[in-house]
Amino acid sequence: MTTQDITRPAAELVEGIRQMGAATASSTLFHMGIRNAHICGPTAWTKGKAVAGPALTLQFMPKREDLYGEDEYAEPERQLHRHVLYHTRPGDIVVVDARGDMRSGVFGEMMLTYFKGKGGAGVVIDGCIRDYVHVQHLDLGLWLRGVTPNFHTQTDIMPFAVNVPIACGGVLVMPGDIIVADDDGAAVVPVALAGKVIEQAHVRHEWEDFAREKLSEGGDLRRYYPLTEAARPEYEAWLKRQATSATS
Amino acid sequence: MTTQDITRPAAELVEGIRQMGAATASSTLFHMGIRNAHICGPTAWTKGKAVAGPALTLQFMPKREDLYGEDEYAEPERQLHRHVLYHTRPGDIVVVDARGDMRSGVFGEMMLTYFKGKGGAGVVIDGCIRDYVHVQHLDLGLWLRGVTPNFHTQTDIMPFAVNVPIACGGVLVMPGDIIVADDDGAAVVPVALAGKVIEQAHVRHEWEDFAREKLSEGGDLRRYYPLTEAARPEYEAWLKRQATSATS
Amino acid sequence: MTTQDITRPAAELVEGIRQMGAATASSTLFHMGIRNAHICGPTAWTKGKAVAGPALTLQFMPKREDLYGEDEYAEPERQLHRHVLYHTRPGDIVVVDARGDMRSGVFGEMMLTYFKGKGGAGVVIDGCIRDYVHVQHLDLGLWLRGVTPNFHTQTDIMPFAVNVPIACGGVLVMPGDIIVADDDGAAVVPVALAGKVIEQAHVRHEWEDFAREKLSEGGDLRRYYPLTEAARPEYEAWLKRQATSATS
Amino acid sequence: MTTQDITRPAAELVEGIRQMGAATASSTLFHMGIRNAHICGPTAWTKGKAVAGPALTLQFMPKREDLYGEDEYAEPERQLHRHVLYHTRPGDIVVVDARGDMRSGVFGEMMLTYFKGKGGAGVVIDGCIRDYVHVQHLDLGLWLRGVTPNFHTQTDIMPFAVNVPIACGGVLVMPGDIIVADDDGAAVVPVALAGKVIEQAHVRHEWEDFAREKLSEGGDLRRYYPLTEAARPEYEAWLKRQATSATS
Amino acid sequence: MTTQDITRPAAELVEGIRQMGAATASSTLFHMGIRNAHICGPTAWTKGKAVAGPALTLQFMPKREDLYGEDEYAEPERQLHRHVLYHTRPGDIVVVDARGDMRSGVFGEMMLTYFKGKGGAGVVIDGCIRDYVHVQHLDLGLWLRGVTPNFHTQTDIMPFAVNVPIACGGVLVMPGDIIVADDDGAAVVPVALAGKVIEQAHVRHEWEDFAREKLSEGGDLRRYYPLTEAARPEYEAWLKRQATSATS
Amino acid sequence: MTTQDITRPAAELVEGIRQMGAATASSTLFHMGIRNAHICGPTAWTKGKAVAGPALTLQFMPKREDLYGEDEYAEPERQLHRHVLYHTRPGDIVVVDARGDMRSGVFGEMMLTYFKGKGGAGVVIDGCIRDYVHVQHLDLGLWLRGVTPNFHTQTDIMPFAVNVPIACGGVLVMPGDIIVADDDGAAVVPVALAGKVIEQAHVRHEWEDFAREKLSEGGDLRRYYPLTEAARPEYEAWLKRQATSATS
Repeated sequence: MTTQDITRPAAELVEGIRQMGAATASSTLFHMGIRNAHICGPTAWTKGKAVAGPALTLQFMPKREDLYGEDEYAEPERQLHRHVLYHTRPGDIVVVDARGDMRSGVFGEMMLTYFKGKGGAGVVIDGCIRDYVHVQHLDLGLWLRGVTPNFHTQTDIMPFAVNVPIACGGVLVMPGDIIVADDDGAAVVPVALAGKVIEQAHVRHEWEDFAREKLSEGGDLRRYYPLTEAARPEYEAWLKRQATSATS
Repeated sequence: MTTQDITRPAAELVEGIRQMGAATASSTLFHMGIRNAHICGPTAWTKGKAVAGPALTLQFMPKREDLYGEDEYAEPERQLHRHVLYHTRPGDIVVVDARGDMRSGVFGEMMLTYFKGKGGAGVVIDGCIRDYVHVQHLDLGLWLRGVTPNFHTQTDIMPFAVNVPIACGGVLVMPGDIIVADDDGAAVVPVALAGKVIEQAHVRHEWEDFAREKLSEGGDLRRYYPLTEAARPEYEAWLKRQATSATS
Repeated sequence: MTTQDITRPAAELVEGIRQMGAATASSTLFHMGIRNAHICGPTAWTKGKAVAGPALTLQFMPKREDLYGEDEYAEPERQLHRHVLYHTRPGDIVVVDARGDMRSGVFGEMMLTYFKGKGGAGVVIDGCIRDYVHVQHLDLGLWLRGVTPNFHTQTDIMPFAVNVPIACGGVLVMPGDIIVADDDGAAVVPVALAGKVIEQAHVRHEWEDFAREKLSEGGDLRRYYPLTEAARPEYEAWLKRQATSATS
Repeated sequence: MTTQDITRPAAELVEGIRQMGAATASSTLFHMGIRNAHICGPTAWTKGKAVAGPALTLQFMPKREDLYGEDEYAEPERQLHRHVLYHTRPGDIVVVDARGDMRSGVFGEMMLTYFKGKGGAGVVIDGCIRDYVHVQHLDLGLWLRGVTPNFHTQTDIMPFAVNVPIACGGVLVMPGDIIVADDDGAAVVPVALAGKVIEQAHVRHEWEDFAREKLSEGGDLRRYYPLTEAARPEYEAWLKRQATSATS
Repeated sequence: MTTQDITRPAAELVEGIRQMGAATASSTLFHMGIRNAHICGPTAWTKGKAVAGPALTLQFMPKREDLYGEDEYAEPERQLHRHVLYHTRPGDIVVVDARGDMRSGVFGEMMLTYFKGKGGAGVVIDGCIRDYVHVQHLDLGLWLRGVTPNFHTQTDIMPFAVNVPIACGGVLVMPGDIIVADDDGAAVVPVALAGKVIEQAHVRHEWEDFAREKLSEGGDLRRYYPLTEAARPEYEAWLKRQATSATS
Repeated sequence: MTTQDITRPAAELVEGIRQMGAATASSTLFHMGIRNAHICGPTAWTKGKAVAGPALTLQFMPKREDLYGEDEYAEPERQLHRHVLYHTRPGDIVVVDARGDMRSGVFGEMMLTYFKGKGGAGVVIDGCIRDYVHVQHLDLGLWLRGVTPNFHTQTDIMPFAVNVPIACGGVLVMPGDIIVADDDGAAVVPVALAGKVIEQAHVRHEWEDFAREKLSEGGDLRRYYPLTEAARPEYEAWLKRQATSATS
């Protein structure tokens, strides 16, 4: 059995998206016409982790016993959740449509150890993993609906296709799209738009650090965010002080 | 744009399944190892209709504005919900994974008039149609989650693929599988199992009409259903009377 | 296997509750301190039917294969959904906690034909039946969440106990409580309160027919409902006219 | 206690919207930038009814015993669900945010008899009514989530405000907006847009009747819907025949 | 644009409620007739934080494009989520009815930095925030349904009113009510009842520390909680030992 | 009032199950025919805790005011949530069907302090506790749906029975079954199968540590998991090195 690999985006695209984080990617995409980039459902189970990478995709379907039977248990090579991992290259992110199922653990410790060994960056699953007892220590980014002691085909779903378009958390993910995920959750950046997203997000306001400092001191929101003309001299004075203190 | 047609099962297979109805098909499949054949969610909106036929499938995905835009409104030929109907042959049933969406009307009056004109037997939609005001009079079988005034891509979903495997109501439907639907709901009969389903369902107990009559008169369930040896002479006497009255 | 029968309330209690209907029973109970008597979830599948009767109860539980196996399929006498029906006396109502399951048909045509043959009045199921194609013609009252082609133990639940306290539609039902059901839905009247419910509901306002007529003609709600002192002479004149026309 | 009345739109606006029905109103609004006009949740409980009219609104809130107590039961004039009805003028539609509650019957027979007596056209409730046993015969249009024997404040909600902006079925309804409802469900037409909606919807294709006839006879969807230039001569011939047969 | 400020309760009321915590406030209110004070849905995202303060309220509604358009993006002063923050005084708590939406981030880092700068104590949102990556370090109390990379009007909701009565987590919150929140969740104390709540909660049993110690050592629940007469001498001996050890 | 105690399994059974953890117990049971042992809904609120023990069970039912009234508040001995704790022996686990209710706190600090004092190992609740502020420090294992400031009978449920069969998280739990719970969640091991589960789980592959190491270094999944014949010499060499380094 062979499954298709994905086309990976240029490393600088991935890096550019990674640096902005999920929140900036999502709002930038909105201003480009994409209403919702948030993979809503899976949440951060590894607080503090922030990753970006191309999407390897795995699709589960409702189990049908005429199509998924004893063979799959006996012959590991027929199990598609293994195949999606075979494609792993450093920095990849596996995205799984597990149909929101809370009683199936898509991957366990051995699968994710292998994924980590191959350089995998994280998994985003509209469903669960198992062996979280051990998996939490693997230093992978995990965005999940939950965890379960059950394994992946124990109840109502079965792996069905690898590296095909999937719906995950109410969002369409194409194989090779860039996933960006952190404590805010995971978002998908359509690969064809990634360059423009980076470009547009760069038009970020250089006065934000100044504004943040002012607001944290009780400054007026109307004056400092967005920065008004009235506050600009104050900002420029601040900039100079910054420069001075940096060089001192 | 071209989409793939399906391979249709032999007419006698379809007819055999149609005659048994959804309940018998579902329980027979269970005894063959298929736990759940019920497309759960869509219900009968045309009470009394009973159909069976090969599945043409249509898959919706979460809408993504970079993939579904103004063009689709302007150029009807790019709309996949039209393409699935182009394949219609007499007796076909269109099955749609509309993701349970209650705010999108997958088909309206004109589409379903065309489908009926081509001999379509019914639609099973994990979602809604619109124009039900008029569609209810088209003499089609309709198994739906509901109806809506909205059209198909008005809110969050877009048609994505035709005649591919889909999940509908928690069940996997392969293009060309046999759908059987009546007031109990819709069920899927995997096409490769259809012959065996017909064969096994034939082993129906010929004494059921007798038992039903007895039970309706207050007869003992333990005695008549299933038929006991003790009741067999009574059944045989009944059989004779039936024969007599039929010939008289 | 033997299961326990219920203690049935006096016929006049049942009849008294039946005459008031579910809405009056529910609001009268509220004024006696019972906040919610509505079995919420099951709805009327036999419009126009109105019944009251003592509750035979059946409890389903999540299926566990060590407790429910092949035997149950082979030996009908081990199936508890049969046993609850064995207790049927004329006017009884079977209430089933089927856990809201939409993929299990608790009873089919043969079981319900037997129930009807024994004089059963209706069923209230927090779940589904199957064979609705035929069952709808049995002249039973049916309050259901839905219908399905699947049979009762096909997926995730199994019958577990007969004539025990159950939760149904968010309400506790004790075996022998009085169920009253009509197009508004089903409600439970605790048997110990039934007499008082009948007594209190009798304090119904004899001027309601007059008020209804006035309101339907565009009369002022403030004046006629509840009836004001100002409108009383008008009401009394109406009463006289009623008497006259009745005797004429 | 006094509550505010609404400003009603011109009769011809209401009539224009009524004639197009919910489906056309909804799709026309979409093309004007309103993604979703469908009040999703309440469905048609009076099949065949089609109404349009200005919205009187009633807002329920979670019950809080310090704000809603015994007084409301004793003094009908403090009950806001009565007050919204006091404003009824012929053709009005009452829209209620009952928070999707399935255990509270917002209105009963007497209230709705009064509403009908005043010329009310219909109610749209994100929740339930009670006394449906009788109310179904009142010849009102009813769009509901369901019915219940319970009355309006029996469990968790209380009426809170009349003729204020409300959310109903996931849509914002302003007092005085035009509601249009039929078997497809209910939709809201913002009153300021109603004129434009009528104008735009008029640009309906005069060839639709021809196309419908052709499709129902098995005609090619690509040729007849939308009408192609190639089919236009055929359409014109049909038009002539229509004219002839109409005058013959 | 101006929005209304709230009337703040006396500082000692707020402090009294803060000291008892959410659990004691909730159960005390129950014994005063308020069944449910728990804002159910939002949970503690800042474990260990415990706050109390007057409620500033913000109401979201389903987005309607005729009422919320490009202007709001262009002119920050039209954005109501900013206006609610303008009212912040030290110790205030912002409570938001975001309709349980999981795809809208009501506030981001800059807004919450400003809120913190003004002395805000915490936010309770029936919905999400964004920028949690940074916000978690602001030392604010956060009770949320979740987090998202999306901003507040990105999908289906829009801010609609400030300092009006709102429903939040199934509870009615009036502007100026006292919110008390800790790891058990958030509860609302109607401001008019706050004094009485403090008074009644004071009737706490002074023997609870003794009982807790006994129970933790395996003491009999029946004997020590509530304290029986039989255990009173033991308690008094304990009290003396406490006094001794305290002074030693 | 007396409630029944449970029969506890042999200590070595409990210990055997505890050592394998929830994931291994669940998958082993699957291979013995039990599809789903996962108590799905309650999750780990005490990360890192891992327990196993016999189930004491507590069943809640929808509250009915004629059966649960003022007495229960006045006379603690009538409260069944106390009674289930009276049976606590060291290592016991209390499992509660609280009907998924998010507004009722089944146990508070005093009850759980007593439970801990008696040696209780943990609680699994399809619902909530209160006083989590304090309870989190008791060093008990907690598997919960959530926490709330409300107490156990504040809104819609009441304790109904002790040490009876219950449904919890979609699974049937019999009193005395062995519960095993860790960060993956809680699972139920039917007591009659516990011995066999331990036996079968022992057939674990002794090469797993080797495989894990290889995978973590980027080794080929196909080669090392499951271990192929080709990799066996490598494994044996590894084993020798292990032995050597252990003795050095």
